[in-house]
Amino acid sequence: MESAQAKNSALQGAGALVPTSFEGLEPLIKETYTNLVEQGVIIPIPDFQPPPVPQDLNAAIKAGKVRAPTHIISTICDDRGEEATYAGVRMSALFEADKGVGDVISLLWFKRSLPSYCTKFIEMCIMLCADHGPCVSGAHNTIVTARAGKDLVSCLVSGLLTIGPRFGGAIDDAARYFKDACDKALTPYDYVEAMKKKGIRVPGIGHRIKSADNKDKRVELLINYGRTYFPSVKYLEYALQVEKYTLTKANNLVLNVDGCIGSLFLDLLVSSAMFTQQEIDEIVEIGYLNGLFVLARTIGLIGHTFDQKRLKQPLYRHPWEDVLYTK
Amino acid sequence: MESAQAKNSALQGAGALVPTSFEGLEPLIKETYTNLVEQGVIIPIPDFQPPPVPQDLNAAIKAGKVRAPTHIISTICDDRGEEATYAGVRMSALFEADKGVGDVISLLWFKRSLPSYCTKFIEMCIMLCADHGPCVSGAHNTIVTARAGKDLVSCLVSGLLTIGPRFGGAIDDAARYFKDACDKALTPYDYVEAMKKKGIRVPGIGHRIKSADNKDKRVELLINYGRTYFPSVKYLEYALQVEKYTLTKANNLVLNVDGCIGSLFLDLLVSSAMFTQQEIDEIVEIGYLNGLFVLARTIGLIGHTFDQKRLKQPLYRHPWEDVLYTK
Amino acid sequence: MESAQAKNSALQGAGALVPTSFEGLEPLIKETYTNLVEQGVIIPIPDFQPPPVPQDLNAAIKAGKVRAPTHIISTICDDRGEEATYAGVRMSALFEADKGVGDVISLLWFKRSLPSYCTKFIEMCIMLCADHGPCVSGAHNTIVTARAGKDLVSCLVSGLLTIGPRFGGAIDDAARYFKDACDKALTPYDYVEAMKKKGIRVPGIGHRIKSADNKDKRVELLINYGRTYFPSVKYLEYALQVEKYTLTKANNLVLNVDGCIGSLFLDLLVSSAMFTQQEIDEIVEIGYLNGLFVLARTIGLIGHTFDQKRLKQPLYRHPWEDVLYTK
Amino acid sequence: MESAQAKNSALQGAGALVPTSFEGLEPLIKETYTNLVEQGVIIPIPDFQPPPVPQDLNAAIKAGKVRAPTHIISTICDDRGEEATYAGVRMSALFEADKGVGDVISLLWFKRSLPSYCTKFIEMCIMLCADHGPCVSGAHNTIVTARAGKDLVSCLVSGLLTIGPRFGGAIDDAARYFKDACDKALTPYDYVEAMKKKGIRVPGIGHRIKSADNKDKRVELLINYGRTYFPSVKYLEYALQVEKYTLTKANNLVLNVDGCIGSLFLDLLVSSAMFTQQEIDEIVEIGYLNGLFVLARTIGLIGHTFDQKRLKQPLYRHPWEDVLYTK
Repeated sequence: MESAQAKNSALQGAGALVPTSFEGLEPLIKETYTNLVEQGVIIPIPDFQPPPVPQDLNAAIKAGKVRAPTHIISTICDDRGEEATYAGVRMSALFEADKGVGDVISLLWFKRSLPSYCTKFIEMCIMLCADHGPCVSGAHNTIVTARAGKDLVSCLVSGLLTIGPRFGGAIDDAARYFKDACDKALTPYDYVEAMKKKGIRVPGIGHRIKSADNKDKRVELLINYGRTYFPSVKYLEYALQVEKYTLTKANNLVLNVDGCIGSLFLDLLVSSAMFTQQEIDEIVEIGYLNGLFVLARTIGLIGHTFDQKRLKQPLYRHPWEDVLYTK
Repeated sequence: MESAQAKNSALQGAGALVPTSFEGLEPLIKETYTNLVEQGVIIPIPDFQPPPVPQDLNAAIKAGKVRAPTHIISTICDDRGEEATYAGVRMSALFEADKGVGDVISLLWFKRSLPSYCTKFIEMCIMLCADHGPCVSGAHNTIVTARAGKDLVSCLVSGLLTIGPRFGGAIDDAARYFKDACDKALTPYDYVEAMKKKGIRVPGIGHRIKSADNKDKRVELLINYGRTYFPSVKYLEYALQVEKYTLTKANNLVLNVDGCIGSLFLDLLVSSAMFTQQEIDEIVEIGYLNGLFVLARTIGLIGHTFDQKRLKQPLYRHPWEDVLYTK
Repeated sequence: MESAQAKNSALQGAGALVPTSFEGLEPLIKETYTNLVEQGVIIPIPDFQPPPVPQDLNAAIKAGKVRAPTHIISTICDDRGEEATYAGVRMSALFEADKGVGDVISLLWFKRSLPSYCTKFIEMCIMLCADHGPCVSGAHNTIVTARAGKDLVSCLVSGLLTIGPRFGGAIDDAARYFKDACDKALTPYDYVEAMKKKGIRVPGIGHRIKSADNKDKRVELLINYGRTYFPSVKYLEYALQVEKYTLTKANNLVLNVDGCIGSLFLDLLVSSAMFTQQEIDEIVEIGYLNGLFVLARTIGLIGHTFDQKRLKQPLYRHPWEDVLYTK
Repeated sequence: MESAQAKNSALQGAGALVPTSFEGLEPLIKETYTNLVEQGVIIPIPDFQPPPVPQDLNAAIKAGKVRAPTHIISTICDDRGEEATYAGVRMSALFEADKGVGDVISLLWFKRSLPSYCTKFIEMCIMLCADHGPCVSGAHNTIVTARAGKDLVSCLVSGLLTIGPRFGGAIDDAARYFKDACDKALTPYDYVEAMKKKGIRVPGIGHRIKSADNKDKRVELLINYGRTYFPSVKYLEYALQVEKYTLTKANNLVLNVDGCIGSLFLDLLVSSAMFTQQEIDEIVEIGYLNGLFVLARTIGLIGHTFDQKRLKQPLYRHPWEDVLYTK
């Protein structure tokens, strides 16, 4: 019953059309088809051209058949080659030339290799602004988030979001106003009094605690560096003249760290002779300088996150007694 | 000297080839070219087929010539037609059927129209968790960021980032553990003692202030709603039996609002009969339920931002006296 | 050698002063001390008053001895009592009165119970703005973050941060400008042309795809609701007159969903007669209305996060081919 | 009628008690009071000690009368003195000693002054991880947010939030697993096969593009630095042996930059001999090493923000054609 013959007989008995040999299969299929067409059971469909299979996009682009518009433009870092480049400079070239973090910032933000006195200054700003204790807005929020048991990025970000007009964000404004006043050759008196009339506080001037008799060491270090290494410090000197005038009004109206970095960065941009006037205006307008504070404080905020986790601090709840519940 | 003739003569005098009429320009160019070729000054390049201009991608896709792979898959909202749809439901259909916020959440999160007792429950959770005062981590960070003068989104986000394992993030864990224990038919004693052995606090149980004698009103409202409107509340009743046991240990080991929402959401998923077992497991595993707290508290955090801006509060600085500076 | 006597003899032999009995210890100490004082070896210090142990702060505050200044002011939610209140209203009272999500927003943002046609309008705005597909900035960033395997809050937040001047942030500006123009009774012509001169695009007007012949259904639903339920819709009608004029310029300069919500919210504030003029100005200035979009889209962004996690999508990398790398 | 006498008479006539002279006023008041007391109209209250006016908190703390508990503990930076200190080191001391960014990180994160070969290594990691083109998750989200017109911090943060398990977050995991395997002296074969059985991909091994024949230059630079300057590189050598084994399985299973930094940082911690075993475990467990990537990439993300703003790129919308809308 397992033989081919037995199976064929059984199929034939059940009404199936069975060829007598393997070679007979094709003619039998053809014959059956022709019969069914004649009987009108099958109605043949005329041949037609099948639609071409679409070509894969990447192959089509490579073959030059399709022009795909790009949706993103980017200029600072090219990762497509053997080795990524920063503004065209290979990473390994940076190490061959003994470059540092300031040089990387120079390439990725300013798209050129600034001279060493500039990149050192950038590093100095980062070092000086890296942290300022646990009580300021940024550190405080990071500490609260760390104590809520969140991951490093969430803790950092929660703190960074406080940086702005009132906390850490005055460097660009200081640069903008000092530049405008100095370029217009306003006397410190005219500049300060004009700001007063407009109801705007002079950015870069004033400190909660520091005063003429208790200078901010960070400012002293920066001034000293600028005067020693910069080809010219026109904007810094202007800012210091403004301070001289404001100190006649109140003892804490000193040039603060924001104002000092802001004016010295103008001097860097101008005295390096590597930027057009239009580029300088763009840098000041877009707000590159606050980027220095943001990057610097990232170090401190990460540090506070680790600190709280190391100390295993529990969930923070602000004390009820410290809140005035009112209407 | 301004006449055409005078100019022609001058050009001719300077050695230029000048036709005698406008019609003579073309034959003169041809003649000059032929001469230069004969002199070997110009070597003609044979004609060639220019490369075809690549076709624009969108046109090519429409013409079926190119098959572009998609990089994003998305299922919850289709904005391509006349009117956007939420899980296939047109927006205007929602209003024709007098649907509410809970229905939109039902469509965008769960991809189906849940019955009205479920969407009302979702709205109830949002209302109950919308805020809990200015002292908790989230509100506190939002307040600090608002006082730093930042925009609404930054303030909101700085607060949201505190939501997690210790603040507002226990609903999913409560659901996970109650589901596991109840499905395995563990007695409350066995469940609680097994957790204790593993050193895990029972999620959804315990409150800083509330106790057996001072029940959380939010929990009472939820229990009442569930028992009245849900077809069955098996998981809630299990959670309440667990509470009964934990209250024998300490008076504040009550079923808290996280535990109550967590267990009732399990009942919603099961008793609505609209989810497969696999879908329920996925919802609990991915952590949908904390989404309710996150959305709800967004209302409160936005409210705190407006509150601080309305009150014109200045930059916050945590008081030095409240910090232990140590090593 | 272990006896007390033996030990005493040994001590005495070594030069120690040893009393003959236990009772003799005290007089011997005194005698020794007196001798040492007389010999000048010990110089007695005069008795002094030890400093009082400082009292615990909370006890001191309760006893009325200390007045601690509060560092935080807050008005929207009081969590200190038996049951938290929203703008003074107990949570359970909200459910007793069958209130909804719109009422909670009314209390926490506007600090008053707005009539039902207002809170329904708030809910309508949230429903209409809850999502608009995966291609817009917010959803896209959330999708990318979800595909990087991050937690719900990080995904949501990464998307929320795109909301601003160009994406979803025009509601307040539309309200500001329509209010100013309408209050000054500028004709649509004067208003639009004055904006053109200042180089500012009229906020609330214009759509990428929608046009006069293909109106945005969301706008139609809102207009219909406002005209049916609001006591007056002065600002909406003004906005529609502006649209009438801008449509003579280009077919897609329609009143969009931002402009429609912005103008109708002005009508809500004015026609409800529950806000002073100063309060309305403050609401528009602080930017409450964008809060509606932020809250609404939170629903969609959470939905996209769940969607990607459910679909188990891998890390997203933008295709190289879609980027123009340039200088 | 205007005279004092006339007024007095009129008052007397109306029933008022009027003294005959100014001197008579006081005795008349006293007499009237005594009469009223006698008539029982006034019931005198016995003298009592008024409650003391509460003292101002800060004054009370200074006077040692109150012991206020602190709610925050912090150890990394003290800003209370003349000059802020990082882990006890004055800022100006850093410049006097010609320290750099790596030293600041060393102080704020690790609370000690690491030797120069360590701080240089930290700077090297930051330089190498500062950016990797516009296509990766972080840069992409930052670009989208910048194109939505948002501020620097929002752009940066939106990108940072993608850093995690799948993007940039493998350094700590690589360190954890290499440390465990190496400390247990597992052979590379045993380690890799055990991971395979657990279904965990070996962290620090594998690259999308790089391979044995096309090594990642960053890895080569790091290996070279470690072998040249570190006292010992036990963990790096272990990682390289693991790579040797995994390369027999597939050509792209190379030691990647995460794995290289992770193993070398273990060598730094151990070979510097400045950390106890417990401190090393804590550093690896808390996840300090991913902090290096987060800080480094902050430079790149800020750069991408400036880049898009400089290029004045418009709002990004992901192309519809690139999305598979499905169910």
